[in-house]
Amino acid sequence: MKIPASHPRRASLGQRHALEKGLKIGIVTPTGMIAFGRGEAFDYLLGEKTSACAKQACQAGAALLLLSKKPVLSVNGNATMLCAKDAIKLAKITGAQIEANVFYPPVKKRRQLIARHFENFGKKILGKNAAKKITGLSSNRGMVEERGIFSADTVLVMIEDGDRTQALRKNGKKIIAIDLNPKSRTAQSAHVTIVDNVVRALPEIARQAHKLRNTNTEELEKIVSAFDNWKNLEESLALIKKRA
Amino acid sequence: MKIPASHPRRASLGQRHALEKGLKIGIVTPTGMIAFGRGEAFDYLLGEKTSACAKQACQAGAALLLLSKKPVLSVNGNATMLCAKDAIKLAKITGAQIEANVFYPPVKKRRQLIARHFENFGKKILGKNAAKKITGLSSNRGMVEERGIFSADTVLVMIEDGDRTQALRKNGKKIIAIDLNPKSRTAQSAHVTIVDNVVRALPEIARQAHKLRNTNTEELEKIVSAFDNWKNLEESLALIKKRA
Repeated sequence: MKIPASHPRRASLGQRHALEKGLKIGIVTPTGMIAFGRGEAFDYLLGEKTSACAKQACQAGAALLLLSKKPVLSVNGNATMLCAKDAIKLAKITGAQIEANVFYPPVKKRRQLIARHFENFGKKILGKNAAKKITGLSSNRGMVEERGIFSADTVLVMIEDGDRTQALRKNGKKIIAIDLNPKSRTAQSAHVTIVDNVVRALPEIARQAHKLRNTNTEELEKIVSAFDNWKNLEESLALIKKRA
Repeated sequence: MKIPASHPRRASLGQRHALEKGLKIGIVTPTGMIAFGRGEAFDYLLGEKTSACAKQACQAGAALLLLSKKPVLSVNGNATMLCAKDAIKLAKITGAQIEANVFYPPVKKRRQLIARHFENFGKKILGKNAAKKITGLSSNRGMVEERGIFSADTVLVMIEDGDRTQALRKNGKKIIAIDLNPKSRTAQSAHVTIVDNVVRALPEIARQAHKLRNTNTEELEKIVSAFDNWKNLEESLALIKKRA
């Protein structure tokens, strides 16, 4: 399928093709395609760029990752196809682990495919041995790896299901969420919500983490505690209203 | 995959499952899944109900269909999976034909599958013999059936590509569009734009057509000419802003 060069949505078509490839190879699910479309609509309303308030949230997220003892970046099928390299870069800068975490079947197969996809970029990730269960979720939705999300103090989730975000929070994790819908349950349940497209947000968090890499604990804590997630979400909502 | 009864998005999951089934049987494309997701986001912002201004647009659309000599309802893969029965009902009330009109490959196969889907509901539709070309579009995007869209005076499109809507309009057709994004090119190019989910809009147009079925030409023309599509689109936008 050739897309005319004049097509006004051409900018986002690279992402679409990545998702379609993911669907073909079994990493992305049909439900993931729909979720991507929902994100597209919100991204369109946000003008398809990282807002000032999203940058602020990225800074808070970066500081929180640097402060954490066991940060984990949780990647699903969509995130894998859209931004595996960026996740690897962020993991390196922040010392985070990456865990494949999916719940749409075939779960085991998809976790393996995601892990292999990362291995192709030279990165070993967790998620193939998800034998522990997060409380508050049915077993097929709550399985995580013991040395990964299960024992993490901070989890960065991208395009995540609301039930799971809330369960992770109830399990004592600090949550950084990347979600284009400021009113989604994931956006509303996280400690730090970055209302932006993952393909822009992950590199931005990495940039901020790079800037902050030599900052002392006290200063990092100041950045995190000065960040007001509710206020930030309201600012993103105001942007959407303005653009609609 | 079982969805918990408590899931807050349960209402739209029936539609998702219909789309996923469509993907499996080859009627829906991966791109169609993404388009559905975009629609979901706008529907969410619209409160997932038919607004007063959408009802008004449905009335204008119904009047226009009743006034038309050769109205055609253009159905793609998503529309087929979401509202085939409703399209059949509307076609019956308004004397419209239905034409399968898709351009994502495999085009021929998909048109056949869509036609068969309608035949399962006892309805013969057009689209399998798309040998004529709408001017202003590349050949794979512009093929339509001679006794259908090619010779139609009015075409109702649902979840349609902007290029195609504009080309149909330039080919002299009156366009009724059902589109959840009031700023999409399809929404902005149609004569009558119904900003609503197809699963609610089609039955509403059918209801309005039923009410108007004995109205004389002059009165129907009054309804159509009194309808201000730009004003109506602004009202839908205002609703989205209010809900965001």
